[in-house]
Amino acid sequence: MKVLVVGANGQIGKHLVTSIQDHDQLEAKAMIRKEEQASYFENMGAETAVVDLEGDVEPIAQAAEGVDAIVFTAGSGPNTGADKTVLVDLDGAVKTMQAAKKAGVKRYVMISSYDTTREAIQSAPESFAPYVAAKHYADEWLRSTDLDHTIIHPGRLTNENGNGKVNAATDVERDEIPREDVANVILSSLEHDSTIGKEFQVVKGNTSINDAIKSL
Amino acid sequence: MKVLVVGANGQIGKHLVTSIQDHDQLEAKAMIRKEEQASYFENMGAETAVVDLEGDVEPIAQAAEGVDAIVFTAGSGPNTGADKTVLVDLDGAVKTMQAAKKAGVKRYVMISSYDTTREAIQSAPESFAPYVAAKHYADEWLRSTDLDHTIIHPGRLTNENGNGKVNAATDVERDEIPREDVANVILSSLEHDSTIGKEFQVVKGNTSINDAIKSL
Repeated sequence: MKVLVVGANGQIGKHLVTSIQDHDQLEAKAMIRKEEQASYFENMGAETAVVDLEGDVEPIAQAAEGVDAIVFTAGSGPNTGADKTVLVDLDGAVKTMQAAKKAGVKRYVMISSYDTTREAIQSAPESFAPYVAAKHYADEWLRSTDLDHTIIHPGRLTNENGNGKVNAATDVERDEIPREDVANVILSSLEHDSTIGKEFQVVKGNTSINDAIKSL
Repeated sequence: MKVLVVGANGQIGKHLVTSIQDHDQLEAKAMIRKEEQASYFENMGAETAVVDLEGDVEPIAQAAEGVDAIVFTAGSGPNTGADKTVLVDLDGAVKTMQAAKKAGVKRYVMISSYDTTREAIQSAPESFAPYVAAKHYADEWLRSTDLDHTIIHPGRLTNENGNGKVNAATDVERDEIPREDVANVILSSLEHDSTIGKEFQVVKGNTSINDAIKSL
């Protein structure tokens, strides 16, 4: 299975491409914004595609040609400006869904935010609310497509080493989770078609990632 | 017909409430953000409802109880921050559509931007692009509802006096239009059910507003 990782140069993206390249049956295609980011991924044997998420759908569709799944883990992040959040987290995400359709890719995994409900938009601190709203509408758009989608809502991201154990369910108590574990949750979701049409929150926990994903 | 004007205190909103109150068969309910804005509308005999578009859907639905149509002419405007554009122009707009459904209101008129296509997002100046994107997704959301909707795409807004003449069609050459004329285009759209399910661009022109609206 070949996986287009959108936002490969992000912190989760780098872990994900690494995990995919370490896996016997999977190969990664790293979608990145700048040419100079390519060597990092080429050195681990991954294909790359330099595409601007703020540009047209067509180059994204070309990058998606021949892949079996798309993972959206790009993100302006909650700390960049609100201008980028609507253009990347919402519009960029929707363009990758439209690109998936154009390229005939059915499988799509979205890395969302922990809570993107209407209530979460309203209860968010003022500086965070636009990000939550952008993720809310990206998730809503994905739910309305006929893509074989999975929406992952991770807890507060840390840079600690992953330990391969998580707590995953529709609703879990808010907690943190290492980005490395999130990457392996994505990988496990790609391996288990039982996650198609599902969405779940995930934080650190006591269950091995594969068991947690299979029990969803 | 009673019309809930969302964003009544805006420049188009004030013209619209005035025009509605001057009309024999129509009455306005002005939805405003602050209590101190109410007297302006009460002095012309209009009802008011103080509701925060960044709050819950429920108070908006209560304001919409018993009205026959909703006009969305609220707007952070292209010159406010991108944080407000996603929370007001997109999320606020969607909440009024959800409120319409809750309150059983079928008729909905959206004041959009001149061009909210994918191409317009990409060709917009960087500071304007988030606003175009927010309006794009609000329009997309409205098209996906079963509301009896009309989407109006006015040209560059001016504060000149309206002369009651416009050029309206699916695509018209970009030009300016007085806000007062936009208000009367909205009024005419409410009066002509032939505009249901349609969207059009409108700029200043040579055709009387009613004739322009009827010919759409």
